[in-house]
Amino acid sequence: MTKVKVCAFSVSLDGYGAGPDQRKEQPLGKRGEELHEWIFPTKMFQKMYGKGEGTEGVDNDFADKSFENIGAWIMGRNMFGPIRGQWPDDEWKGWWGENPPYHVPVFVLTNHARKPISMKGGTTFHFVTDGIDSALDQARKAAGGKDIRIGGGVSTIRQFLLAGYIDEMHLAVAPVFLGSGENLFAGINLPELGFTEIQTEYGKATVHVILKKSSDLARKT
Amino acid sequence: MTKVKVCAFSVSLDGYGAGPDQRKEQPLGKRGEELHEWIFPTKMFQKMYGKGEGTEGVDNDFADKSFENIGAWIMGRNMFGPIRGQWPDDEWKGWWGENPPYHVPVFVLTNHARKPISMKGGTTFHFVTDGIDSALDQARKAAGGKDIRIGGGVSTIRQFLLAGYIDEMHLAVAPVFLGSGENLFAGINLPELGFTEIQTEYGKATVHVILKKSSDLARKT
Repeated sequence: MTKVKVCAFSVSLDGYGAGPDQRKEQPLGKRGEELHEWIFPTKMFQKMYGKGEGTEGVDNDFADKSFENIGAWIMGRNMFGPIRGQWPDDEWKGWWGENPPYHVPVFVLTNHARKPISMKGGTTFHFVTDGIDSALDQARKAAGGKDIRIGGGVSTIRQFLLAGYIDEMHLAVAPVFLGSGENLFAGINLPELGFTEIQTEYGKATVHVILKKSSDLARKT
Repeated sequence: MTKVKVCAFSVSLDGYGAGPDQRKEQPLGKRGEELHEWIFPTKMFQKMYGKGEGTEGVDNDFADKSFENIGAWIMGRNMFGPIRGQWPDDEWKGWWGENPPYHVPVFVLTNHARKPISMKGGTTFHFVTDGIDSALDQARKAAGGKDIRIGGGVSTIRQFLLAGYIDEMHLAVAPVFLGSGENLFAGINLPELGFTEIQTEYGKATVHVILKKSSDLARKT
């Protein structure tokens, strides 16, 4: 059965999934890269971006797992690119070059319609203008029984969380404080939403926490 | 020179320093004990509460360090006890029995005056009704050049943080989400207050993070 998952999503100790001032030259916002230091050296990341060998171990295992059995992705427009408002043309095709690391349909939430873009390696970007329910329906059909990964950013994950659509989350918590930016947890009560921590592992520059939602597991708060 | 420090203060991944519904039978609030699991098995804690041997290692080192060179404590009234409003009598003398683990003057912030209480082992509880500046002045005099530890709870630490009085913090972040309770970070921007993470260590059920404030270290945000 298709699960809706957040995987390998990095946040700071004060709950920020990106720093302030996100823009083309700084896609993760100010100091946002510090959240992701755990993944850069891994074999998975190095293989994906074609730079040398990379490390094995806990971080690499989680990085690998985050791409396993994913049949479709959903992401917010800011994760897809820095352009705001109307698409000026068809130039921008994501941050990831000709062959993006998804290899499945990717549904991009936006207020501005655009034709799908087929990329090398099986990734197709579909632009969804009628909200998260529609994106989820389309992703479910496209996923063919595999899981759906909600990529990010923070605002997209918050929408899916609050709508009760997320079954499982793997958060990678970096031991830094960003102080401002986009906060994943503000006003969100994970136990009340039915989530329980089922696994914790320390990585090299992060704490991996797996949360699952289940009526059995749900704490009564 | 006297430093004003927060030591061994436990918070959840979503920033809560205590769970909801704090009361006499549940001084740390609902699920609040989960934040402190790292310290219970340590040699320091076991020695302090007289139960067996206890563990050595990272957690015990941090637990020990949290009591080193402390000349005075400041704590909020909720950390001192569960009674709210006027003191009904002189019965309540803290959670810690006849010989509390402080062994120095402890300044308790309260709106309700009460005479000092001298306990066994050198701890004296002083009740300060005229605010944090007065408490800090009194603690500074009492500390005789040693450091002042701001014990907690969350609301007390927040007041000292926002006033700019804290020089150093050791937070012990437990890999759990409490969802509600008293939040240490809501609306608090640690980098903007001049704090930088200078050390991170993984314990058995926590991540120890040391933050220091310094104009040299302060990030420009």
